[in-house]
Formats: sequence, C-alpha cells, structure tokens
Amino acid sequence: MMSETGPHQSLFLGIDGGGTKCLGRLVDASGRVLGEGLAGSANAFQNLQGTRASIVNCAEAALASAGIAAERLDELVVVAGLAGVNVPRCHSAMTQWSHPFARFEVFTDIHIACVAAHGGEGAIIVVGTGSVGYNLVDGKGHSYGGHGFTLGDQGSGAWLGRRALQAVMLAGDELGPATQLTGLAQAQLGVSGLEVVDVMSAASSREFGAFAPLVIAAAEEGDEVARSILDEGAAYLDAMAMKMLAAGAERLSLLGGLANIMAARMSKPVKERLAPALAQSEEGAVRLALRLQTGQ
Amino acid sequence: MMSETGPHQSLFLGIDGGGTKCLGRLVDASGRVLGEGLAGSANAFQNLQGTRASIVNCAEAALASAGIAAERLDELVVVAGLAGVNVPRCHSAMTQWSHPFARFEVFTDIHIACVAAHGGEGAIIVVGTGSVGYNLVDGKGHSYGGHGFTLGDQGSGAWLGRRALQAVMLAGDELGPATQLTGLAQAQLGVSGLEVVDVMSAASSREFGAFAPLVIAAAEEGDEVARSILDEGAAYLDAMAMKMLAAGAERLSLLGGLANIMAARMSKPVKERLAPALAQSEEGAVRLALRLQTGQ
Repeated sequence: MMSETGPHQSLFLGIDGGGTKCLGRLVDASGRVLGEGLAGSANAFQNLQGTRASIVNCAEAALASAGIAAERLDELVVVAGLAGVNVPRCHSAMTQWSHPFARFEVFTDIHIACVAAHGGEGAIIVVGTGSVGYNLVDGKGHSYGGHGFTLGDQGSGAWLGRRALQAVMLAGDELGPATQLTGLAQAQLGVSGLEVVDVMSAASSREFGAFAPLVIAAAEEGDEVARSILDEGAAYLDAMAMKMLAAGAERLSLLGGLANIMAARMSKPVKERLAPALAQSEEGAVRLALRLQTGQ
Repeated sequence: MMSETGPHQSLFLGIDGGGTKCLGRLVDASGRVLGEGLAGSANAFQNLQGTRASIVNCAEAALASAGIAAERLDELVVVAGLAGVNVPRCHSAMTQWSHPFARFEVFTDIHIACVAAHGGEGAIIVVGTGSVGYNLVDGKGHSYGGHGFTLGDQGSGAWLGRRALQAVMLAGDELGPATQLTGLAQAQLGVSGLEVVDVMSAASSREFGAFAPLVIAAAEEGDEVARSILDEGAAYLDAMAMKMLAAGAERLSLLGGLANIMAARMSKPVKERLAPALAQSEEGAVRLALRLQTGQ
C-alpha cells in the first residue's frame, strides 16, 4: 500500500457504479484522461461482494485501456459513487473494505451525479426506474426520496408502471374509471384480469418500469387515468424540487430516463430553474478523486 | 377409487385452506360431525405441492380424530376452499391433481366463506392481511379485488401498514404532513429514516400488516394522516360493497381481522345491510361436499 500523499500518486480513477454497470475514468494528476473501464453492476444494497468485485474489475479494465500494468492497481486513488450506500449499513460495509488501491473513498451515486451536473454545488432529481433528489449546498448534501419501489419512488418508471396496472385492476372491477391502459397492458403482458396478478405480483421494479411507456402513450392520447398518474408523480417531484430550491440550490438538473417527461410537467418556478447537467456522473467521481490529491 | 355415486359415500370432508393452516370437518351423510382435522398451510398460489400435502394431512387428521381407519381415505368426498385458486393456473393445477380421495372438488376460499356466512347466497368482504370481495347471486360467484399486496388489497392490514410507512418516509423528507405514525413506527421497528427502507423493502405482506394496528391507534388519537389512510381504505371497501349490493346481494358480511374497524367506517347504506356470518368457512365446504351426494 502506498503512502496516501506519496509522490507516485499520479493515477486517479472515478467510478460511477449503478445497478446495471460500473463506468470508470482514469486520469493523471492534471486531469488528463488516460483510459476508461467498464464492469458489472455495483449496487451495494443488493450485492456487496459483487459491488466490490465490479469496482476492482472496472479499475483493471481502465488500467488496461490506458496501457498501464495491472500491478499498478495499488497506486490508484479511487472515488466511487455507488447505488445503495445511502443505506447506512451498506455505506459502512464499503468504507470498511480492505481494498487493493492506494486510497478508496465512496460516495452515493447521487452525490457524484450532483457534483458532475453542476461542476460543484446544486440540486438534482434522478427519475428513472426509481426516483431520488439530492441537494448539495455549502458543502452539505441532503437527499430526498430514494425510498425504493415498495415504500416510495413516486414519479419513477416503476411507480408509473405499478400505478398503471393498479388502475387496470380497479377498472376491471369497475371500481375505477375505464382506461386505455387496460388494452395497452393486456397487449404488452399477453394476459388480463386476475392473471395479471399471477404474472406481476413478484415482478421487479425494472419489470414494472417496462409499463411506464404505456402511461406516457395513453396520456398523450388523452387518457384521463394515465394523465392523473403522471400528474401525481410530477407533483411529488415538483414538491421535492421546490424544497431543494428553498434550501438554497442555485442550479437544478433533472436526470434519468424520465427527466424530459417529468420536466414538462413541473411548475413554472421549477421549470425556470432547470439547467442541463454539465457532465456525466463518472466525471463527478474523477473530480472528487483529484481533490484527494490536494487534500481539499 | 370408489365410484362417484357409490353406496359407500358416507364420509364427507369440508376443508378451509388458507395461508397459515387447513381446517377440516368430517361429517356423515346426515351432516353429523364425526371429527375435525388441522394441518399446515394451503395457498395454491404460493406452494402447490405443499397445498396438496396439507389437504391429505388434514384428511388423515380428521379421520384419526373420528376414530376411523386411515385406509378409508379413498372413501372421502372432499371439498376444499383454497387461497390462491382464484388464479386460473392454480385452479387448473388443483383440479388436475391425482388425489387419493373418492371425490375432490376445489373452490376459492372466499366461495366457501360466502356459502358459510349466508348458508347460501350473499356477499362477503374479507379484510385481513389482504382484501377481497365475493358476491354469490343466482348461483354465480363474482370476485372483486384480491389483487395482492403489490397491485391492490386496498384497505387490508398489509396495505394500511405500507401506507403508514410511506407516510412516515414522506414526513421524514418534509414532503408530507407530520404524523404520530413516525414515532410509533420507530418504536416498533427500532430504526428510522433510510434504515426503514433497508429493513422493510423486502418485507412480506404479513410484516407490513404488523403496522396496521399503529394506524388504528394513531387514528384514535386524532392523527389526521392515520385517519385519512383508514378512510381511503374504507372508501375502497365501501365502493366494493355498494357494487355487490347493486348486483343483487341480499346479505353482506364483513370477515377478517379488520372487519370491525372497517365496518365502522362504511357508508350508511352499507352499514344497514351488514349481517353477521352464520358459520365458519369450513362449514361452507361441508355444505358443498354434502351437495355432491345428492348431485345438486
């Protein structure tokens, strides 16, 4: 293991770790990109050992892409932004890891996304399969939502999809309004009625997220049920955005696969503060890794 | 295997099979109770082989309690009401079973509960860990709800519990009103904030149902969030009840652990039609088994 401030610390790796993959970017002390790495999923909540393995694989891939010997793994200053480390137990498990690097620091995936989006401080809302907000103001980060498919993630793809199927089930009993979602869901699932329960009751958030496009399509066709689902999700995200702006965020970026859909449904004060993300998440991790060099 | 209408068909077994246990009642052709049996869970959706085993165990136990030789299993006319057979795939699997009895017929658990509650036709709403309605009118049964924890079961214990924890998470972000449920849930769970997500995100419907009493307690203390959760659940069940009364049900019974709590929150027209269940579910299965004797 190298000294943390030794002269050989010239390799910095920023990793954006998520539920599907790890993206790493290797730079020198001046920030010049030397290589990039891609590896498997890194969700510390779902799979701790797999996350550690993905991080090492990602580092090895980045070194290889830069033409640097794998033995120099122990010279790397690594910063990883990871899904799942918002849960205290998972964060501890990652910080207590006997990693093979010179130095390793972990942040939440949303922290590095926020740093990347604003080149520093600001607020983000990530709305994809799940939903979460993060506000970085005066050096302090605060998250909103991110409560997962079972307890929250309002406005997310999985939430939209489940709401759609719930509306279909209610309509089937004539205990809710008829909706175009019934036909759309049947076409996608290949079943209807109580068989939907059979097929979907143990489905993953990702599988529910596959029904989000039906909500968007039906809403565009004027379906009131679909519109009210989208509006309810957007209202939650809008309240989250207002909260973060009130707490001092200067810039606000919406990220994730549903960002554009939801941005269009935000309130005027929120829309006026929306700003595009300046860089991808892994760039935020690189930035934080370079800071370790100077002790910032 | 006996002939289905043979003279030896003097043993009739009615089984009420549910997620936790099977209760069986053994009678002779006149309906006189000969014995009773208790066995393990019988939810055909969750565990098909286990359900079949529980039914055989229940029959053996009933024969033993009546002092009748186990060899006479093949003389039994068995009717079982089972959880899970509302799902077509599970119903088929049970009817295609090469059972060891003289005759075996399967109904949904709610069908036999309905027959028992009214000694014939009528409507029931079962509201315990889950929620479901069933209307038996002019020889035809029709179910409402029963869509499970993920897609429905509004007003049920699991639904109330999840709603409570969702409200706690919203309040924690100050994106929902403060509620006494926060303190009550923390006392019961031993954790708060994002650790609730860690502990509960993969919890079963039964585990969520353990938080339903907190909603009831907080509502009694005047907590507005808890009251609105109860009201929303009751409104769903009330709409279901109105639907079944409009479809011709003469009697309506509320069954399950939350029946009294929800009955108190029903609308006046529904309350006026509420009638106590006349018998326990296994009695409904016995009744249907005896009907097979006369070919009704």
